[in-house]
Amino acid sequence: MSEFNLQSIQEAEDRIKSFIHRTAILKSDSINDIAEAKIFFKCENFQKIGAFKMRGALNAIMQLSEKEKSNGVVTHSSGNHAQAVALAAKMAGIKAYIVMPNTAPKIKVKGVESYGGIIHFCEPTLEARESNMEKIQKAKNCTFIPPFNHKDVILGQATAAKELLEDSEESYDYILCPVGGGGLLAGTALAVKYLSPNTKVIAAEPEGANDAFRSFKAKKKLNNEKVNTICDGLLTNLGDLNYEIMMKLVNDVITVSDDQIIEAMRLIWERMKIIIEPSCAVPLAVVLNNRELFKGKKVGIILSGGNVDLDTFFAALKT
Amino acid sequence: MSEFNLQSIQEAEDRIKSFIHRTAILKSDSINDIAEAKIFFKCENFQKIGAFKMRGALNAIMQLSEKEKSNGVVTHSSGNHAQAVALAAKMAGIKAYIVMPNTAPKIKVKGVESYGGIIHFCEPTLEARESNMEKIQKAKNCTFIPPFNHKDVILGQATAAKELLEDSEESYDYILCPVGGGGLLAGTALAVKYLSPNTKVIAAEPEGANDAFRSFKAKKKLNNEKVNTICDGLLTNLGDLNYEIMMKLVNDVITVSDDQIIEAMRLIWERMKIIIEPSCAVPLAVVLNNRELFKGKKVGIILSGGNVDLDTFFAALKT
Repeated sequence: MSEFNLQSIQEAEDRIKSFIHRTAILKSDSINDIAEAKIFFKCENFQKIGAFKMRGALNAIMQLSEKEKSNGVVTHSSGNHAQAVALAAKMAGIKAYIVMPNTAPKIKVKGVESYGGIIHFCEPTLEARESNMEKIQKAKNCTFIPPFNHKDVILGQATAAKELLEDSEESYDYILCPVGGGGLLAGTALAVKYLSPNTKVIAAEPEGANDAFRSFKAKKKLNNEKVNTICDGLLTNLGDLNYEIMMKLVNDVITVSDDQIIEAMRLIWERMKIIIEPSCAVPLAVVLNNRELFKGKKVGIILSGGNVDLDTFFAALKT
Repeated sequence: MSEFNLQSIQEAEDRIKSFIHRTAILKSDSINDIAEAKIFFKCENFQKIGAFKMRGALNAIMQLSEKEKSNGVVTHSSGNHAQAVALAAKMAGIKAYIVMPNTAPKIKVKGVESYGGIIHFCEPTLEARESNMEKIQKAKNCTFIPPFNHKDVILGQATAAKELLEDSEESYDYILCPVGGGGLLAGTALAVKYLSPNTKVIAAEPEGANDAFRSFKAKKKLNNEKVNTICDGLLTNLGDLNYEIMMKLVNDVITVSDDQIIEAMRLIWERMKIIIEPSCAVPLAVVLNNRELFKGKKVGIILSGGNVDLDTFFAALKT
């Protein structure tokens, strides 16, 4: 953990800030009325590639040596990390090989293609993703940019919470973010530790992929046996480094059902007129379904991304 | 026309500004790449009630006498104006009677209810709307707040373009807004006349409700005989006052098809992660389908509203 401190977060920010957006922080009077809390939404759905993942990918890729850069980078991802690595590699002028499950949302596949990423599709299992990636890594001698279990990725993700904290005059009672692999969660917890130590950090997780919840309660790292949730960005297991940071710095992990997540997502679409993906609605669902905990509190929520397949909606419009 | 001048627009702004949002102006690098233009979107979808209509309704209602206020206000509207009058009346502490066609989008009906508006449903024809409204007006002796054909409503709507112009350092080559009854169009043209006279104002209209286009070309006020467009906010005919201002101050009226409108709407949803209603996508559709006109130009677009029925989309998510 010694590599994580305020200086390393600050260095990550200095490294990436001219390549990313300092995203808006929005609030909604009507959602606050419904939730009986003061909620501030950090809009990473407005970030480049439509998600916070841009921060970590850039921070990792920008630290490669010239020799490493010349061989390119590789990763596997269901979506947003894939787009982030593809665009960060494009910005660095290097090649990106992306292993994606053949079930990945079309909008994310299109995104990777548009940034010039070289896509290899595989079966939607962790085993298939990892074995395909290893093959490419050996063949091309390129560097793996992991989606979450990596120091520089975590430090990059930490910059989102850093901005949220710095752009507010008063401190937050709570900051919530969704947890899948734990990159955003670990980064958020680190930023809060160094910048606002009295703020509590809550991980928000779908019931249908609740390895972080079970791990937190059991105090040992447990994996998902099977996953069943609409949150396509949160299907992975926690990384080791992410688990370690969670156990040290996160105050609680709270789960919600897919119905509660969809209700929260709809509320944000309807009241705030912004598009977020299901994974991104998990923290608001946690606030809405744990009213006593958050009543009257100042709550920061990181809206992690906005890449949703809109085919169904727009198909209905055309009829 | 003598009541329209810079001072009357300024007075409208002073009257309403503490009750409305000064909405964000957003841009999208990827939409600019596609359109080959520099487009700035004035996000009235983020306005109170989710549309610019709040401005005009407030400006009209806040000027009523105490006696008029005590009898309440009445209007007819397919949606956004209904919500605007209901909320503006609530802010003024007075009653609002709202005649709505029974085909109005559910989200707009729910909005009117949530602001305490007293709804009377009628058949979806102009005749039914007007006759129902007149009955209420006589019974309650209340004041009609027209949706667009009214000086104070137009002056209120003018404040959106005023903000757009004032929040930009360089002047615009073009400003576009959708045209239905012409309230936003007339207000925009007036603001441009007094604040940025070299900027051209273009009205954007769906082919399926093209009375403004035909009127502009024929130089006489023509009505729609029948309407057929997805743009539920643009079905009405131009008002007399709105027609008069359009003929004096608007540079052109350009129409686009519903398919072009849906394509533009989807682009805004996908690239900007914000929700706009179909009526609101008409100006971008005009830019995308008249490339030579707008190539390399600085273009301001007023995104008029974001009230979309999301039932189809969310129904698909639940399965």
